[in-house]
Amino acid sequence: AASRTTSEVLPMTRAAVLATLVAAAGCAAAPPPPTKPTPYRSMGDLLAASKPEDWRPLRLEDAVVLELPAGRVVLELAPAFAPRHAANVKALVKGGYLDGLAILRSQDNFVVQWGDPDGDDEQKARPFPPGAEKHLPAEFTRPAGGLPFHRLPDPDGWAPEAGFVDGLAAARDPASGEAWLAHCYGAVGAGRGEAADSSNGAELYVVIGHAPRQLDRNITVVGRVVEGMELLAVVPRGPAPMGFFEKPEQRVPIRRARLAADLPDAERPRLDVLRTDTPLFDAILEARRNRRDGWYKRPAGHLDLCLAPLPVRPAPIPVRVSP
Amino acid sequence: AASRTTSEVLPMTRAAVLATLVAAAGCAAAPPPPTKPTPYRSMGDLLAASKPEDWRPLRLEDAVVLELPAGRVVLELAPAFAPRHAANVKALVKGGYLDGLAILRSQDNFVVQWGDPDGDDEQKARPFPPGAEKHLPAEFTRPAGGLPFHRLPDPDGWAPEAGFVDGLAAARDPASGEAWLAHCYGAVGAGRGEAADSSNGAELYVVIGHAPRQLDRNITVVGRVVEGMELLAVVPRGPAPMGFFEKPEQRVPIRRARLAADLPDAERPRLDVLRTDTPLFDAILEARRNRRDGWYKRPAGHLDLCLAPLPVRPAPIPVRVSP
Repeated sequence: AASRTTSEVLPMTRAAVLATLVAAAGCAAAPPPPTKPTPYRSMGDLLAASKPEDWRPLRLEDAVVLELPAGRVVLELAPAFAPRHAANVKALVKGGYLDGLAILRSQDNFVVQWGDPDGDDEQKARPFPPGAEKHLPAEFTRPAGGLPFHRLPDPDGWAPEAGFVDGLAAARDPASGEAWLAHCYGAVGAGRGEAADSSNGAELYVVIGHAPRQLDRNITVVGRVVEGMELLAVVPRGPAPMGFFEKPEQRVPIRRARLAADLPDAERPRLDVLRTDTPLFDAILEARRNRRDGWYKRPAGHLDLCLAPLPVRPAPIPVRVSP
Repeated sequence: AASRTTSEVLPMTRAAVLATLVAAAGCAAAPPPPTKPTPYRSMGDLLAASKPEDWRPLRLEDAVVLELPAGRVVLELAPAFAPRHAANVKALVKGGYLDGLAILRSQDNFVVQWGDPDGDDEQKARPFPPGAEKHLPAEFTRPAGGLPFHRLPDPDGWAPEAGFVDGLAAARDPASGEAWLAHCYGAVGAGRGEAADSSNGAELYVVIGHAPRQLDRNITVVGRVVEGMELLAVVPRGPAPMGFFEKPEQRVPIRRARLAADLPDAERPRLDVLRTDTPLFDAILEARRNRRDGWYKRPAGHLDLCLAPLPVRPAPIPVRVSP
């Protein structure tokens, strides 16, 4: 979708690129002119030099703000991948369904998951608000066609192609024509039972450990956490199998959940998400793929899809110009 | 080192294996006899059917027991990979060096790290006990020769070969003849400054997030956590850059650290570590690579080194036979 010129050579170290250039010029008798090496720029350096067009604002109409006792967690939904689930999560949140529910499960190196503790009991389950559906189709994958997929050049063991779509880690299979979101740290998915179409978004989980990519294409991913991961990640692990809590008092309550767009102006999250289809993002990937900062002695020459940084920042305060 | 017969075909699904067998028999006129499919056995099923020889006891002379306010954490050191660092950690622990020190850092999706908060101040730093050295050589890699390396057949983007050595995730480069431990969840490494040889084991970190494999071959890995990861993983993240704590009262104290072998018999951890050079372990890898348990709709056909389970269990109580 965006410039691939840079990224295609990124798995090479700079020294290797220079060697290639020197070799290509090898027929000339004169030695190549001395090259002033480009100083290494870390992700921090690159972000500090970013331009406004390298970022996009958080989509307030797709963002869910959860209020936990420890602070605020913000999710951004991905209707491009899971339109029915994203719409249902929004209907549930708008109807106040999540207010007063809780984190039901915290499994080490896997997920935290929230929902209605009585959701399995038809008599006691909290009713769905108007507009929210009990049954949805599975949205494990979507057609890859038409999707602005920015490919990561590094190999990925879990999928034929890994890459990024609008700030999200994703994957693609040219043979089947499918694309899907990857279960990286911070990914939000819709819990389901054994039936593929048994999720509706009322019970969501967030990945808090090493990316469980075996879940890819087996469950509907609805977005990712853009603020507050450090609060979800430290929820004490549940003592029962799969990290479930045995007693209600062990559960972390969700005090309130709102769509960001429905919050009063002063309470809305003001966040920018780094665009993933830019030369800046490619430069960040390369800065992480081959760290040359003095501390690293051997650049890896590789980057895992789920180690690619997907920066989010507080939106800069607009400069007011006096009339 | 052990049976490779099973593992070499593991990346294929069972259906693919059957198709291969059918194709190989294709010249025969008669259709192949009906095959009774092997029922899927999960890791839990496989472990339940394990035999005593599938396990080895925790090496008490290489195990460090940390007492935190929340409970006990047990590390097993890896002298086969980092003999100098492992010996120094043992000397520090034996000399009581860690007692009363603290977790200095908790960085989300990266590491927790402990040590002497005054370690950088020569006047205030806690003195090293006799036998513990201030300066050690880097032990980033070791010669691969002579190491019982059980290879994981799945591709790994970070290393030419990934695999297991005696219950640890490791990697190997046939070209350079080096082997090293991988930075998977739970790996324990020796913090260092910019100089490669600036670690001595007094400050150790534990991976609590998605495996930061870019650290492989850049720092000395000394072992892994075999009990209590769920306590380290939920340490609230530090507010300062890199997750450091700003105030002493934010730090989680280490009440006491002892070598397991030096504890009174009743306090010693009684743990078994699953051997990683057995047909059982290969079967577990395959059970994870291709989950066919009803819930998974599309087996991944792949397993990441750092998602391979490395089970630890309470050692069974020996049956006493009356004389």
